Amino acid sequence: MNFLEERIKKDGIVKEGNILKVDSFLNHQMDIELFNEMGKEFQRRFEGKEINKILTIEASGIGIACIAAQYFHAPVVFAKKAKSINLDGDMYVAEVVSFTHKNVNQVIVSKKFLNKEDKVLIIDDFLANGCALQGLIQIVQEAGASVEGIGIAVEKGFQPGGHMIRNLGYQLESLAIIDGMDAETGTINFRKQG
Amino acid sequence: MNFLEERIKKDGIVKEGNILKVDSFLNHQMDIELFNEMGKEFQRRFEGKEINKILTIEASGIGIACIAAQYFHAPVVFAKKAKSINLDGDMYVAEVVSFTHKNVNQVIVSKKFLNKEDKVLIIDDFLANGCALQGLIQIVQEAGASVEGIGIAVEKGFQPGGHMIRNLGYQLESLAIIDGMDAETGTINFRKQG
Repeated sequence: MNFLEERIKKDGIVKEGNILKVDSFLNHQMDIELFNEMGKEFQRRFEGKEINKILTIEASGIGIACIAAQYFHAPVVFAKKAKSINLDGDMYVAEVVSFTHKNVNQVIVSKKFLNKEDKVLIIDDFLANGCALQGLIQIVQEAGASVEGIGIAVEKGFQPGGHMIRNLGYQLESLAIIDGMDAETGTINFRKQG
Repeated sequence: MNFLEERIKKDGIVKEGNILKVDSFLNHQMDIELFNEMGKEFQRRFEGKEINKILTIEASGIGIACIAAQYFHAPVVFAKKAKSINLDGDMYVAEVVSFTHKNVNQVIVSKKFLNKEDKVLIIDDFLANGCALQGLIQIVQEAGASVEGIGIAVEKGFQPGGHMIRNLGYQLESLAIIDGMDAETGTINFRKQG
């Protein structure tokens, strides 16, 4: 097990309905030393890639992206989930339908901060069905920029998002991939990674 | 002028209605090297304070808080602005009325992540009327924890938030305090700080 899998095993809580709560260290309270380990590991996994921009989405992706950005010496842009009054001018807007809730969400990035010279690493905390991620990829493509890689903290490998993104040919690196969970016993099965 | 004031002068854009846009480096695209300078400056200004937790609010406070947390060796907790489906159990909920929009917003933190042993540094990107900040202070007090200090990137000194918070006796450190702006000339007047 790697450092993140160990931490999930120690502090993650499995709930009924395939819910994994990692809010004590990842997405409500945030362990910044752990985030630094994650940043270093993303650097290792994307070694050799020329990355000049990190793209994430509010809110819980921002902390991981900012700490990781220190290892890539790149600025972070975070996408907003709804039209904000503070955004003006031209914006990239991706409409994504939630697989779970069937509603439509907008993912928004100002055109000022993504252009065709950008070599983008997308970072987020969770990947399950991948709706938010699909919106981010859509926006990078609309900008004429390239997706150099996608770094995720925790992937629910039993949901289709990661599978689909890899089938599309993207280098998707999830630091922990969960293939199954059992709320009764608290067991979490991690996928073996090379 | 300090480093942040210089950056605001260089890249901030003054708009009609006392709007200052700093989205190219602070709250949409984020300059992580600048955030590190800010973290160091917060460390200097709060030297001698025993801080064991950083509290911020989604979304644009998170990046600054996470980078600054590296200088305090403390975890970050971010408050949510609306009841989230991923939060369960007991939560601190502060209701704050927006001075500008007159609507009521909820600021929410899980009770698991704030308790009476906590010595809290509150960090946010902007302070104007201070509604979000009032909600955060309310929550820290409800938890029986102490507000050791408040670190803000940009304060609009011509709006009442900062004045009121200092009158309440809190150590409020704003890295840049703007006392006036002129959209026509693009001039920004910074308050002299000792």
